[in-house]
Amino acid sequence: MSFFRPNVDQLHGYAPGEQPQDSGWIKLNTNENPYPPSPKVIEALQQRIKGRLNIYPDPLATDFRRLVAERFNVDPDWVIPANGSDENLTLIMRCFIDPHERVVYPYPSYILYETLVQLQGGTFDRLLLKPDWTWDPTDAAKLIERAKLTIIPNPNSPSGNRWSDAEILSLIPPQGLLVLDEAYGDFADKPHRAELLHSERGNRIIITRSFSKSFSMAGIRLGFALAHPDLIAGMRKMKDSYNCDTLSLAAGTAALQDWDWMEANCRKVAATRNRLTAELRALGFHVPDSQTNFVWAQHPTHCAKEIYENLKTRKILVRLMGFNGVHWPDAKGNLHPVTGLRISIGTDAETDALLTALKPLLA
Amino acid sequence: MSFFRPNVDQLHGYAPGEQPQDSGWIKLNTNENPYPPSPKVIEALQQRIKGRLNIYPDPLATDFRRLVAERFNVDPDWVIPANGSDENLTLIMRCFIDPHERVVYPYPSYILYETLVQLQGGTFDRLLLKPDWTWDPTDAAKLIERAKLTIIPNPNSPSGNRWSDAEILSLIPPQGLLVLDEAYGDFADKPHRAELLHSERGNRIIITRSFSKSFSMAGIRLGFALAHPDLIAGMRKMKDSYNCDTLSLAAGTAALQDWDWMEANCRKVAATRNRLTAELRALGFHVPDSQTNFVWAQHPTHCAKEIYENLKTRKILVRLMGFNGVHWPDAKGNLHPVTGLRISIGTDAETDALLTALKPLLA
Repeated sequence: MSFFRPNVDQLHGYAPGEQPQDSGWIKLNTNENPYPPSPKVIEALQQRIKGRLNIYPDPLATDFRRLVAERFNVDPDWVIPANGSDENLTLIMRCFIDPHERVVYPYPSYILYETLVQLQGGTFDRLLLKPDWTWDPTDAAKLIERAKLTIIPNPNSPSGNRWSDAEILSLIPPQGLLVLDEAYGDFADKPHRAELLHSERGNRIIITRSFSKSFSMAGIRLGFALAHPDLIAGMRKMKDSYNCDTLSLAAGTAALQDWDWMEANCRKVAATRNRLTAELRALGFHVPDSQTNFVWAQHPTHCAKEIYENLKTRKILVRLMGFNGVHWPDAKGNLHPVTGLRISIGTDAETDALLTALKPLLA
Repeated sequence: MSFFRPNVDQLHGYAPGEQPQDSGWIKLNTNENPYPPSPKVIEALQQRIKGRLNIYPDPLATDFRRLVAERFNVDPDWVIPANGSDENLTLIMRCFIDPHERVVYPYPSYILYETLVQLQGGTFDRLLLKPDWTWDPTDAAKLIERAKLTIIPNPNSPSGNRWSDAEILSLIPPQGLLVLDEAYGDFADKPHRAELLHSERGNRIIITRSFSKSFSMAGIRLGFALAHPDLIAGMRKMKDSYNCDTLSLAAGTAALQDWDWMEANCRKVAATRNRLTAELRALGFHVPDSQTNFVWAQHPTHCAKEIYENLKTRKILVRLMGFNGVHWPDAKGNLHPVTGLRISIGTDAETDALLTALKPLLA
């Protein structure tokens, strides 16, 4: 006899990327930043550790929210902090989705969305993407018609492409909200700064952001959401009072005060990404132009799983991803489920090691 | 037009205790430990800060769970870590409560339970406590008959009393689970070590634990739950993969390795608590024997709100608590809602300052 809610029992749960705890790996599988966080983050942590850890954190995250607000041209009551961006996505589901309400998201993209919808008892609709990572506007219009939420990662994972503002705005459900997951937003050539919140339908948009990627703080767990204060106020009722701890708030506050460090790392990552894209294409991979810290690589003749496993024997981890439920044609017009390798951008040395290991596999 | 789920809209949200961000307060309102965490915790944090914060934490919290398991005489698959004990309480609601399922809890106790039930769309039943903090077994039997969960804080807040194992076990719902919230468990004269999990109905019990109180780590946000592996496995599907960060796991692991430090602090707190209890009683307060790091004080002739406000003008914060919905008789037999002051145990100096401030108010 199970006491779990039926939709928990029925679910397999989301499997995150492998996180080996031993050393020696070239880890290109979970989109971590290869560069360390700002020295000011380390300094702030060292200071805060000497402070009063026996006292609860500021439940309003006052300093952190003020700095986020300044950077994104909103007032602090447009900002809610989270224990990682995933917590905000969970909060959003819990705030807006009652059993059987519908959530639309583009597919292939971040499949955690499906798990979160199912855990909440809602229903998801996949907006199927075409091989050029666009969608059919007629399909989209039908799906959003009955949706409570659309969630769209922009730039997208695993493809790395970014959709235009007009494309994004076209996905606001007539009777619901649009969630714009900008986990990779800072790597784009022209990063957004929440401009869409000031658009005509800006009060129907929630933007989520992460410190894990561009700020090199995946180990710290910190993110935030930006939205109209009416939405933020409701979300605040749902969150735990002390969801962000003293140290992560101190780290986040310091990181925001050294924006240049983050941007410089993003530029380094983008340069390596562009080089890797060219090299992978030279090896015969199809690689869409990426606006993120990873690339999506599909080879017309070599099996992704074999490449993944072979690299793993050399202690190089990339992410093998398969998306059942969407079928794209090969050169002969035969349809296949979408399968490929999502490769995070490491240092230049890590990227060289990857390419050195790849070349003989494709010879 | 609101897009929130109706039960979110209808809710006021839980108001945590005041957390003034300026200095100079004697803070006896949110049950923080007045003593710092172990020096080994600080050392571990200093080490970990020099490490790779750009990498995700161990999603399995392997070292942390192993140490918890050893201490509580279970295997590691009986342990799930949380971003503070409140996160585990939220997870439990999300795992087990579908709309209109019922949760029983003793009242007065931790009213956050009600908020969490409401946010999930469930229904709560208060098991009303008598002035001696016991319940009527016939009332209890009726309520648990239709409950999916019973949640019981033991020791209880705001009273500080602890119920016996037999009393606890009598509250397991015939068709559900018992959640035993042991946030204050280490302050008891004979702390429990999850013995009930090994009882005949141990697979129907979930114990939640916190590092905020006995381990002096409220600023860190860390807790865990202990239960049969079938329950833990389901709860793991619900939690975010990386709900605990690298630093809090390092701090928790170090804290578990310096158990003596925690116990020594608990003994100091208990000694101060017993002295404060005696002194408050000498001032005419009714104070139940406490097994926690706080006491519950009600005065037969002086208004709790006036005392609270007067202390606040002297920068001494205690917690003014009112529990509508339960009425107890005064000396004349007239019924009143339960109101009183919950006073956290500070250092001896803080306690002296409190008593010095109180005496003239009661003269």
